[in-house]
Amino acid sequence: MKFCSICGRHVELRVPDGDNRLRFCCAHCGTVHYENPKLVVGTICVLDDRVLLCRRAIEPRYDFWTLPAGFMENDETTSAGAQRETIEEAGANIALGPLFAMIDVPHVNQVHLFFRATMLDARLDPGPESLDAGLFLEEDIPWDALAFRTVAQALRWFFADRRNGAWMVHTGAIDPRSRWPGEGQKTPPGDASGSPMP
Amino acid sequence: MKFCSICGRHVELRVPDGDNRLRFCCAHCGTVHYENPKLVVGTICVLDDRVLLCRRAIEPRYDFWTLPAGFMENDETTSAGAQRETIEEAGANIALGPLFAMIDVPHVNQVHLFFRATMLDARLDPGPESLDAGLFLEEDIPWDALAFRTVAQALRWFFADRRNGAWMVHTGAIDPRSRWPGEGQKTPPGDASGSPMP
Repeated sequence: MKFCSICGRHVELRVPDGDNRLRFCCAHCGTVHYENPKLVVGTICVLDDRVLLCRRAIEPRYDFWTLPAGFMENDETTSAGAQRETIEEAGANIALGPLFAMIDVPHVNQVHLFFRATMLDARLDPGPESLDAGLFLEEDIPWDALAFRTVAQALRWFFADRRNGAWMVHTGAIDPRSRWPGEGQKTPPGDASGSPMP
Repeated sequence: MKFCSICGRHVELRVPDGDNRLRFCCAHCGTVHYENPKLVVGTICVLDDRVLLCRRAIEPRYDFWTLPAGFMENDETTSAGAQRETIEEAGANIALGPLFAMIDVPHVNQVHLFFRATMLDARLDPGPESLDAGLFLEEDIPWDALAFRTVAQALRWFFADRRNGAWMVHTGAIDPRSRWPGEGQKTPPGDASGSPMP
């Protein structure tokens, strides 16, 4: 950020009076431009014993598989956002269930929420952000080709709860130093759970 | 938003290619300025059978009582943010517990998260955003002087679960048309659960 979106003058990075963090501030009109984490909302959607995954047609993680999910929009609820993303990315006709997982991704200033959902029929119609959409048995999940750590974590919790016959709400956080297929010990820029998900 | 924060030129409100929503777009540098909901994170913090509330020293809802909570910051987790806000607003020494409630407030583009927490000692030291902080038995909660609908809803769920002896993760959404003490049927501007919480 270089310019004030209100008045167009240059902003400066400083700690406002009464604050304790650096913010982009406009000395001309006095606006403090706060920046806060974004919510990513999606579903773990099943048809019988199979789970819905989409193959990404966009960067980051083009050609990798993901749960249908994306940035929550203004003027919607978390659950409405999760349902909207599932329709947009997979063209699925679903009944939304309860919140299943909340995963912090602090190194990219995101919080990922996944709701359980059920497909009402077998039709899929992948949107422009998906190369493909498909239904996977647990033993067929492409673990080495999943797009994001949060997706892998949510799926692991999902299959564990299903085996236990007891659904919980799971919470956790992604450690950027943790190992991920195809990466070294350190997350490369523009990759992994971190990158913006359109 | 009138100006591009990247290049300083005027932005225009239009639907970008491949999108279906109005966004502030810069025709000069091509930046699309997305706006997304913000997370408010806080605690329901107890010492024995009493709950910690803070009396607000800032607008909106100056002089009304609230659970300690505020906007989640970049570079932190939801739970770290909830703990930070409890320290900043009440000066309490706490042990953070699990997620308790997630409440959508779509008419102001916020999602409120409350974690359970326990005070490790009885000391309180209200910060500059609080006129006062105190511990309340259920029968002494100032229901008519609570700052936000989400606070009232979280407290109602909390006392119900405590009576039942079974803790759940609760989710819900605030309907802006619902009645609230001191308001008419419609939420006035600058009031109620909606207004920005610094």
